[in-house]
Amino acid sequence: MAIDPSPQKFMVVFQPSGRHAYVTAGQTLLTAARDMGVEIESICGGQQTCGKCKVVPDVGDHPKYGIASKLEHLSPPDVEEQNYWTKRRREARQYRLSCAACVQGDVVINVPEESQARKQIVRKSATTRQFTIDPVVRQYFVKVKPAELGGRQGDWERLQASLANTHHLTNLRLDYFALRDLQAILRQGQWEVTVTVWQGSPENKPEVIRIQPGYQEGLYGMAIDVGTTTVAGHLVDLQSGQILATESMMNPQTTYGEDLMSRISYGMLNVDGVAKMHTAIIEALSTLIARAARSAKLKPTDIIDVLLVGNTVMIDLLLGINPVELGGAPFALATHAPQDFKARDVGLKIQAGAYVHILPAEAGHVGADNVAVIMAELPHTQEDMVLIVDIGTNAEILVGNKERLLSASSPTGPAFEGGEISHGMRAAPGAIEKVRIDPVRLTPRFRVIGQERWSDELAAEEIKAAGICGSGIIDLVAELFAVGIIDAGGKFVLDTPSPNFRPTAQVGEYVVATAMQTSSGREIIITQQDIRAIQFAKSALYTGAKLLMERRGIKQVDRVLLAGGFGSYIDKQRAMMIGLFPDCDLEHVYAVGNSAGDGAVICLLSRERRQHAKEIARQIEYIETAIEPNFQDRFVNALGLPHNRDEFPHLKGLIPAITTERKERRRVKA
Amino acid sequence: MAIDPSPQKFMVVFQPSGRHAYVTAGQTLLTAARDMGVEIESICGGQQTCGKCKVVPDVGDHPKYGIASKLEHLSPPDVEEQNYWTKRRREARQYRLSCAACVQGDVVINVPEESQARKQIVRKSATTRQFTIDPVVRQYFVKVKPAELGGRQGDWERLQASLANTHHLTNLRLDYFALRDLQAILRQGQWEVTVTVWQGSPENKPEVIRIQPGYQEGLYGMAIDVGTTTVAGHLVDLQSGQILATESMMNPQTTYGEDLMSRISYGMLNVDGVAKMHTAIIEALSTLIARAARSAKLKPTDIIDVLLVGNTVMIDLLLGINPVELGGAPFALATHAPQDFKARDVGLKIQAGAYVHILPAEAGHVGADNVAVIMAELPHTQEDMVLIVDIGTNAEILVGNKERLLSASSPTGPAFEGGEISHGMRAAPGAIEKVRIDPVRLTPRFRVIGQERWSDELAAEEIKAAGICGSGIIDLVAELFAVGIIDAGGKFVLDTPSPNFRPTAQVGEYVVATAMQTSSGREIIITQQDIRAIQFAKSALYTGAKLLMERRGIKQVDRVLLAGGFGSYIDKQRAMMIGLFPDCDLEHVYAVGNSAGDGAVICLLSRERRQHAKEIARQIEYIETAIEPNFQDRFVNALGLPHNRDEFPHLKGLIPAITTERKERRRVKA
Repeated sequence: MAIDPSPQKFMVVFQPSGRHAYVTAGQTLLTAARDMGVEIESICGGQQTCGKCKVVPDVGDHPKYGIASKLEHLSPPDVEEQNYWTKRRREARQYRLSCAACVQGDVVINVPEESQARKQIVRKSATTRQFTIDPVVRQYFVKVKPAELGGRQGDWERLQASLANTHHLTNLRLDYFALRDLQAILRQGQWEVTVTVWQGSPENKPEVIRIQPGYQEGLYGMAIDVGTTTVAGHLVDLQSGQILATESMMNPQTTYGEDLMSRISYGMLNVDGVAKMHTAIIEALSTLIARAARSAKLKPTDIIDVLLVGNTVMIDLLLGINPVELGGAPFALATHAPQDFKARDVGLKIQAGAYVHILPAEAGHVGADNVAVIMAELPHTQEDMVLIVDIGTNAEILVGNKERLLSASSPTGPAFEGGEISHGMRAAPGAIEKVRIDPVRLTPRFRVIGQERWSDELAAEEIKAAGICGSGIIDLVAELFAVGIIDAGGKFVLDTPSPNFRPTAQVGEYVVATAMQTSSGREIIITQQDIRAIQFAKSALYTGAKLLMERRGIKQVDRVLLAGGFGSYIDKQRAMMIGLFPDCDLEHVYAVGNSAGDGAVICLLSRERRQHAKEIARQIEYIETAIEPNFQDRFVNALGLPHNRDEFPHLKGLIPAITTERKERRRVKA
Repeated sequence: MAIDPSPQKFMVVFQPSGRHAYVTAGQTLLTAARDMGVEIESICGGQQTCGKCKVVPDVGDHPKYGIASKLEHLSPPDVEEQNYWTKRRREARQYRLSCAACVQGDVVINVPEESQARKQIVRKSATTRQFTIDPVVRQYFVKVKPAELGGRQGDWERLQASLANTHHLTNLRLDYFALRDLQAILRQGQWEVTVTVWQGSPENKPEVIRIQPGYQEGLYGMAIDVGTTTVAGHLVDLQSGQILATESMMNPQTTYGEDLMSRISYGMLNVDGVAKMHTAIIEALSTLIARAARSAKLKPTDIIDVLLVGNTVMIDLLLGINPVELGGAPFALATHAPQDFKARDVGLKIQAGAYVHILPAEAGHVGADNVAVIMAELPHTQEDMVLIVDIGTNAEILVGNKERLLSASSPTGPAFEGGEISHGMRAAPGAIEKVRIDPVRLTPRFRVIGQERWSDELAAEEIKAAGICGSGIIDLVAELFAVGIIDAGGKFVLDTPSPNFRPTAQVGEYVVATAMQTSSGREIIITQQDIRAIQFAKSALYTGAKLLMERRGIKQVDRVLLAGGFGSYIDKQRAMMIGLFPDCDLEHVYAVGNSAGDGAVICLLSRERRQHAKEIARQIEYIETAIEPNFQDRFVNALGLPHNRDEFPHLKGLIPAITTERKERRRVKA
């Protein structure tokens, strides 16, 4: 009788994906998974060292697949696998190493989430953010054949052979600095090393950017949002997606100019202006990274990937490009493409071989930070018509949905961040962040950051107010308007009967905190000029948003997302009362926090999102507000508070009610 | 009657290649050439600016192709071509621009050598060197579409579009530093720029490494041989192949050790030893490049490509790799592959975007310098059995022919370069380079570098000898032996009746130059120890060469090539008299000069040779002399002068003749 020489095959099912196939007896589960496209994590490449590939056999009948899955359908643990589990007895009861267990019967295998090579991650936020962790760097553990006398291959050639054998990695490049230490590290690790491979750009072959002795685990990256005023960065565990540290600091370039135009001018008027601003931001970024590393108990050299976002001028300056072209028409970018440079070329002090990735830009005035916002909020994938405003010194505006998305940039100036306001300050302890004005007595009460209680619940000397931050100013202007201290044009009503109001030559000022209530012992006031600055800022934002809505052919948006660090603290009702954004049901107005920062973290973690960012940045329609013929007129028309009541149906019952009360009070008084 | 709508075609023949085809009427000659694979030079890509593509129409009957070639079979020069020729009237009589002349009849076109994209070059040397100039960098002139308001492309994207249109260059990468200045240069050149593209490694996509404003011509590179003792570099015009400047200097690492082993030790014994030696050589290379640039009336930033060769320890140190592994078995290389790094990473101060290429190594002790020698002499392409010795502080030896080639390395020490010799010095003005000893009177006469006449033709005080260089020492030892002042074992014959010989306690010394004849006012002598050092050096070389010949299965070589700066000045007859290399007909012993340096220049100029070097470095059989079991015995046996007369049939009539004379003299004297 003839014996069938072909090896036996058994059904293997992987859960939760449900992928299944007949597998030749004797194959490891890891190989079977790889062949079926089920991605199981593995750093050691099947050497039963890393334990990343552990799986749970699902014993029992599985009628769906017509099989009975049994433990003995896998080869019993060999000595090496037993050694691995010896130290981990509790886990050993349910897990097997998929690189060791061989198929010898039908089985159903559960791949737990931590063993999946591409982990799904859900970030909780005002909007739900879901994406897959798939960083552009990965670690591979390998055993390398020791050098032999008469052997004709160099250490790098033998390392390449091991990487090809164990991990199927071929065509690798090697970073210069990784080559430098290669020999010492191979010997230090006794011919066992962990190699970090960067595969960040489809244009370049994968590159070995770090070699560590022995078995090593740990990939850390930084996602940094370089704002005109603030630089904020997250240190991220690139394997779990966890944020290990968050740091922020002032952009040191503010010394050279508060806003974008003044930085551009500084670069034009000073021979070494660009170099100075470049050096300042690069040093700041290195400091920020060092701080974040310290709080995560890491070294700066542990950082192996960096993703940067920022507006186009910030990105130019940090790359050392003169941003002069962005200061005037036609606002030409050096490049709109995403960039991958060696961090050392840019000047960042992290791991020598690491890259820095910069997200693409949309146009001269809408940069990588706005692309990051899109990657966080994904407006281009949704049915809802959404308006996203990312409020900073420069505001970026997005309007649209999955059918068509438009963007613009509006120069709001630093008013919302407390800049160019008499007693303005950044959102920091001591800043007045909320204000209410009594509609009858016309006196204020307020809350400062760092205090649980309002000013009227504290003794004056306990309050220690230091200034007003953005959300406080918006509250203040909205309240002043609601109680009638300022009129719809933003002007102080000079006969206002408030003890806190002082009419000065044709203008006036309002005392928010008395000398007793402040840390400096001096009053905190708001002047006519301050109100003017807020009006300019909000009108720029509003006009830009309305222009985009008009171009998109809509009169109303379904949702408004207020992004930016400042956006998180804003009182959305009062923001709409001053006309910061077009009318919307307040239930559908969300403060989404630092959306650009979140998008940066997502793109740091996901190769796919970087590719997606590259594509979407080319698809968005950019509207250049600076060349819009009647933009100036619209801007002037939108300066009022709220400039046109008809445009804000959702304000009904908010301002009108107060207004009636106010009239009543005046009547009684008269 | 139907009209044939297909356009007319005409026969176009390009000379000297003879390639021909029917070409559609109206096509330019440049396009026709490209389609036929005839490579015509063009920097401006057909914009009638560079004139690189000029050709000569060959008017007359060409029966071979059955056509009559006429001037009017080309479209007459248009305004732009007329403008080009206006300034070049003399040339205009015979030339046409192939990018402008369109085919309108049968023509035969001569492509002059200067218009051929790949020029053949022949270097005159002891051996003839022929190769094709095809550098890894090329310049391309382009006109870029200016930035437009509302245009969605960055400057780099528009530049890419132009490069694709005009020069069919796609998939380009852009160097970080080239990006930095891109915008300013585009505007400075009024949207016309010359782009330098590097295409040095098949592993990487082509990269724009420099952007210059307007139309620019000029590509310059440096080929540098980093020797243990001397660093020598050629500045080369990468378009013509011409050497514009040659500079050399001491390797500053000599401070840390004369030979390879002492440098390796220095690196092992000092924490910052490798860093110090790395910095020293990199600074020296930058200085050398700056000097060469100055003498060629260029700036260091004009250098756009660098090729480095050297022994494996020198290459390690200049890359900052600790060479400790090369100090002991198994002599593991970090890598044997050729390397392409950014010059800025290595630390060289040249054009910011430029690369440095390092030729591959054969094995732990045979490095890029020996590969360069092979690329210069091409022993692997020849029928003749050849022995090549590259003499330096470390000597590399090659034996074989096109069927099989073997290499080895021998630590000769610095004696041939004047090191470790009492009055040794490098080949510089004042060095005694030739010596003759009168066989009867046993007194010397000599010639110093910088003097036309011999010492006996000058007044003593005119001579100003400063020391003895390598070729002088070889002459001296050979002559001392020939006249019987030293015996076949290298020992002074203590009863030598010479006024210049002084027997000292059991040893002796010989005065080469008297105090009157030297610049220092002190005698120049050679001691027993000096002779010993020369014997060690020559025996190391000889034993290595004989070992390779044995492995190759030959008793005799057809040719001996003496390479190395020192090899050029050597008296080959006297070199064989001391047994520096195995027996060979002196007619077939050639001093080929700095062969490694020539090979470096060739590889700097030829992409193909670099590829070839990569392949050949893997094919050569390397013999590790250090582990050859009876190498030490052979070495001791070869210390004599010449150690075994039977092995040197070609010495017959040289030493024997002198020996007879010597015996006669002694007899008379006795």
